[in-house]
Amino acid sequence: MLTVGVVGGTGYTGAELLRLLIMHPQVELKYVTSRSESGSKVADLFPNLRGFTDLCFTEPAAETLSECDVVFFATPNGTAMKMVPELIKQGVRVVDLAADFRLQDARVWKQWYGMDHACVDVLSDAVYGLPEINRAAIKSATVVANPGCYPTAVTLGFLPLIENNLVDDQHLIADAKSGVSGAGRGASVATLQAESAENFKAYAVDGHRHLPEIKQTLGRVATHDIGLTFVPHLVPMIRGIEASLYATLAVDLAADFTTDLHQLYNQRYADEPFVDVLDPGTIPETRSVKGANTCRISIFRPQQGNTIVVSSVIDNLVKGAAGQAIQNMNIMFDLEETLGLNQVALLP
Amino acid sequence: MLTVGVVGGTGYTGAELLRLLIMHPQVELKYVTSRSESGSKVADLFPNLRGFTDLCFTEPAAETLSECDVVFFATPNGTAMKMVPELIKQGVRVVDLAADFRLQDARVWKQWYGMDHACVDVLSDAVYGLPEINRAAIKSATVVANPGCYPTAVTLGFLPLIENNLVDDQHLIADAKSGVSGAGRGASVATLQAESAENFKAYAVDGHRHLPEIKQTLGRVATHDIGLTFVPHLVPMIRGIEASLYATLAVDLAADFTTDLHQLYNQRYADEPFVDVLDPGTIPETRSVKGANTCRISIFRPQQGNTIVVSSVIDNLVKGAAGQAIQNMNIMFDLEETLGLNQVALLP
Amino acid sequence: MLTVGVVGGTGYTGAELLRLLIMHPQVELKYVTSRSESGSKVADLFPNLRGFTDLCFTEPAAETLSECDVVFFATPNGTAMKMVPELIKQGVRVVDLAADFRLQDARVWKQWYGMDHACVDVLSDAVYGLPEINRAAIKSATVVANPGCYPTAVTLGFLPLIENNLVDDQHLIADAKSGVSGAGRGASVATLQAESAENFKAYAVDGHRHLPEIKQTLGRVATHDIGLTFVPHLVPMIRGIEASLYATLAVDLAADFTTDLHQLYNQRYADEPFVDVLDPGTIPETRSVKGANTCRISIFRPQQGNTIVVSSVIDNLVKGAAGQAIQNMNIMFDLEETLGLNQVALLP
Amino acid sequence: MLTVGVVGGTGYTGAELLRLLIMHPQVELKYVTSRSESGSKVADLFPNLRGFTDLCFTEPAAETLSECDVVFFATPNGTAMKMVPELIKQGVRVVDLAADFRLQDARVWKQWYGMDHACVDVLSDAVYGLPEINRAAIKSATVVANPGCYPTAVTLGFLPLIENNLVDDQHLIADAKSGVSGAGRGASVATLQAESAENFKAYAVDGHRHLPEIKQTLGRVATHDIGLTFVPHLVPMIRGIEASLYATLAVDLAADFTTDLHQLYNQRYADEPFVDVLDPGTIPETRSVKGANTCRISIFRPQQGNTIVVSSVIDNLVKGAAGQAIQNMNIMFDLEETLGLNQVALLP
Repeated sequence: MLTVGVVGGTGYTGAELLRLLIMHPQVELKYVTSRSESGSKVADLFPNLRGFTDLCFTEPAAETLSECDVVFFATPNGTAMKMVPELIKQGVRVVDLAADFRLQDARVWKQWYGMDHACVDVLSDAVYGLPEINRAAIKSATVVANPGCYPTAVTLGFLPLIENNLVDDQHLIADAKSGVSGAGRGASVATLQAESAENFKAYAVDGHRHLPEIKQTLGRVATHDIGLTFVPHLVPMIRGIEASLYATLAVDLAADFTTDLHQLYNQRYADEPFVDVLDPGTIPETRSVKGANTCRISIFRPQQGNTIVVSSVIDNLVKGAAGQAIQNMNIMFDLEETLGLNQVALLP
Repeated sequence: MLTVGVVGGTGYTGAELLRLLIMHPQVELKYVTSRSESGSKVADLFPNLRGFTDLCFTEPAAETLSECDVVFFATPNGTAMKMVPELIKQGVRVVDLAADFRLQDARVWKQWYGMDHACVDVLSDAVYGLPEINRAAIKSATVVANPGCYPTAVTLGFLPLIENNLVDDQHLIADAKSGVSGAGRGASVATLQAESAENFKAYAVDGHRHLPEIKQTLGRVATHDIGLTFVPHLVPMIRGIEASLYATLAVDLAADFTTDLHQLYNQRYADEPFVDVLDPGTIPETRSVKGANTCRISIFRPQQGNTIVVSSVIDNLVKGAAGQAIQNMNIMFDLEETLGLNQVALLP
Repeated sequence: MLTVGVVGGTGYTGAELLRLLIMHPQVELKYVTSRSESGSKVADLFPNLRGFTDLCFTEPAAETLSECDVVFFATPNGTAMKMVPELIKQGVRVVDLAADFRLQDARVWKQWYGMDHACVDVLSDAVYGLPEINRAAIKSATVVANPGCYPTAVTLGFLPLIENNLVDDQHLIADAKSGVSGAGRGASVATLQAESAENFKAYAVDGHRHLPEIKQTLGRVATHDIGLTFVPHLVPMIRGIEASLYATLAVDLAADFTTDLHQLYNQRYADEPFVDVLDPGTIPETRSVKGANTCRISIFRPQQGNTIVVSSVIDNLVKGAAGQAIQNMNIMFDLEETLGLNQVALLP
Repeated sequence: MLTVGVVGGTGYTGAELLRLLIMHPQVELKYVTSRSESGSKVADLFPNLRGFTDLCFTEPAAETLSECDVVFFATPNGTAMKMVPELIKQGVRVVDLAADFRLQDARVWKQWYGMDHACVDVLSDAVYGLPEINRAAIKSATVVANPGCYPTAVTLGFLPLIENNLVDDQHLIADAKSGVSGAGRGASVATLQAESAENFKAYAVDGHRHLPEIKQTLGRVATHDIGLTFVPHLVPMIRGIEASLYATLAVDLAADFTTDLHQLYNQRYADEPFVDVLDPGTIPETRSVKGANTCRISIFRPQQGNTIVVSSVIDNLVKGAAGQAIQNMNIMFDLEETLGLNQVALLP
């Protein structure tokens, strides 16, 4: 049994982490911290947990958290980087669901997140926790930077194309759409149901924080900088991300392109337990992964032209956050990678 | 391991049954039948099941279904009663999620469902599968009539009041609200999203089929006919039922009533794994049971008057259908009653 | 042309008021005030108003507002009562959409709203602005207390029964449901889409501020105190209220009751431009009044028993707030009562 | 006053047409036809129309329809082309909201709609009713082909870029999203609320019927064939389309591009009453046009790269169908172009 702590358990990624950890057969959930809710029952805040846990929120403290084998941070950006150095000194391993350890270049981090990075040395050892790319490094990582929700959907969708140099990687387009839980559980006017329901809009068109993260990952795969236009949109539903990805076949390929893209994707993800390449002509829908740790992907070449279209869906709170965090934990501690993550998505 | 068949697996109760059976550790799902989808993969219809089952829909046939220990009917009303006699002759036990075996009086059945009952003898032996009332009888039942969704929420909400003769049982009021999955998966204009979303209305005010079912159950508990006004409403959400129940304290009690209603409910349901009485002042919400087999209940006496208000919530597809069916199966086959039913509700 | 000011134009009743005032042919909208948004364009906050108005929010000030013929308050409770005395001194007439002038008894007001009333003398002259009851008084009123949303739906639904002494008025039940815009436009966790969508629950079961308001109005009609249990619920949609009302036929009537209830309602509301009694057997739905100032009502007597069921629907922001406020203005200034209020509801 | 007939008034574009025609000050609505609903009251099908019209549906017949000045077809594709020749012979002018007259090349029409065109001669005289391009021709048209919903949003979004040869018009991308009312009012499983709510997906990725329509219009503007990848998506809301458009700056421009795109769009649409170019940095949302005939547009150049992003929103039932049809009628009959179309969008 792993002894587990969760720092910042009052948001949606925290809530989802608790749901999954509670059902995980090898986890003993020991601490759930929250400054604002300290002392109150976790199940009073999240009534779905009634009957499953008697834990109360506690103040976050290195002394107690250091009793854990692994600590998850489901905190706002900028919190984990202040506590992690102390924890890893105590031998604790960490999965950070925020952005603190996602961008390897501290200057880029500062540019997009507006703060100096608090532990650049830890940052340089942190492993980007996308198992489909970094499984081996995750195994031995002390600190895992759990990927952002959009980056997970977009990266897994583009990956086989980039790995095989099939497309013009200077003009990639990712038109992504997310349910409102992605905006978090903080009080806000913009995601009141009366504002965001029955509405659809793009946001952050000029630049979203997940842009440098996606570019970093795909750039490493390509071994050079890639060019990406990334436009996120807000969908009037609670959970789910769909990313429609557009890429132009590389010039020299376009003329007589015969690669079976579907087969290429199928082979790439054949051994991945949480990536499901759909049959040709089948389009993924977000509800097929609601509550599940799966990324479903389809590839199209409309009118046999030279534009490739990929549609990639995940549950932003599961494969895009809490589920992937647990997948990383399983890998780090040599557990079956799918342990505790085999729930069937809730449909309808 | 139990060998299990599902007849009529293309509707929402069927889909939910499949989701839960697939995750049940003591179930081998052997047949899922559908005349319309025969031959096609179950996971093609319900993409959340991809990776969990390779089963194809088959034609419903007594020869094959009789290989099963238990067969669930998730068919339209009037189908099960035609196939069940043959199956039970072969030693199969049956849980019917439709209404065929819910009303003990075949004339009342005909009045509300518009057909003659096809097997009155089987009907008289069928057990109404509300474990909180009929657990012992369910254990040895050959045919279990799985309760309707509204009757489950309403009956569990009124039960302690009726059992203890605390209220005027001739003027009970149940104002119930259901998500649209309760209307089924058949093509229909009325539950198109463009019709039912952003809309709220009562329906069947003059009389709903679940009225005689509730009256039968509560009448048995009271040992006399009870009077009930039952008004269902359609809520623009997918899953969930909330029933607000109103009852007047019995005349002789009202003057100096001192019973602690909360304690009464708590005691009544203390040993029930799937009924959760909330703390005084706390109001249940349907999302707290989304995907879970739990019924959550609160009791109020506004302004200390003589009207008692009970709010009772369930997931109509789980405790109101598929989950309760599996709870019944567990009881029938001496399995742990909660086996396969311990998922935490999906929130948000 | 009437010169009109709106105090507190940043909430949903304010937004709806602006929408309707802008389209009103006899209104010149002169001031829209907001302390927090002062200086910014109204159409920047509410993009649906782009192209219809160039007004900017201004600080609320008696000097400027007193230039208006009529001032609407769409402010939080407790604001209007502080500004109104000064305004009426200047000859301005007022329609308050908040609760400040709804309860005639200042002690009851304090009990439910937690503040001393700031202008009891004005209060005693204020007219409760439900035209279907108080049209004559509204005509000459200086201050009109625009009714609450629930009270509008519930009162119009019960009215003919109470006026004709047909039911036991000591045990009335109103089970009411409102869309989330009723909770206002303030940042809050409870009505985030990720919280309130796909969810249904009762709230304020122990006592809601609209209870004393309904009791006051119906009590005046009955000429004695009435007894009411009022339970509001939150519906996962933006606009709309449905109230299901339950009443028991008065004892001496129940035996051989022959009144045609439908005809009774039809006659009562025959001359009311904004109350629509549906044909027998037809059930009203909230979407039929989305954006319209109409209250639609149906009456049922299920199984010919002695419980009467009334279903009443309104748009909480129109007949339940801004539309009714403009109806009141039309009456106060001898305009055609329906002027500016003849939009067809938006369906789907 | 214009005498107006509507053929096929039972779908959503028909319903919206009725809503707008009823409020139009220069329209006398004379016939609304429907084979299936003939004889029943229009207001029984669409309860929002109660009190506004006493019309009953009638059988569609050339004799009666020919009494009208203008007839709108809100029928399935392939219906109008059979009735229009007879009507125009009688001097009736026609606005077809279906696709029958949208594609000038009858072979392309057959390829995408699967039927031979029934009146190729009429087709060649029909005018594509996008006023922002074809106002002069619409004025004298006998038959106006009302544009599709997606084509309206996409064409208006791309138009200034194509007219000015600013982008590579061989690799345009339109990622479009529509509310479910776009799928029509026919009974169907796919758009049941329990299926389409809380879900997001692309559809028709391999080719949607609106693709050739958009290519035809933009190709005429460019005076050569353009290349477009068009991917529609289904959004869990009732009304609204958002199109995110991507184009690469033409090669020779990209190096030192200084055009003020915002100003370009502003000038292009300065005299258009129903196209609203937002301020730089402001992103349009579909709710800002709910029920209104407006198209709102923003232009972005993320990170000052060579990819231009345009976001364009409309109400699919108004500017994307019924509103634009009335705008066309106003132009055809020399009425004020905005007559009857000045409603403020319903927000929230």
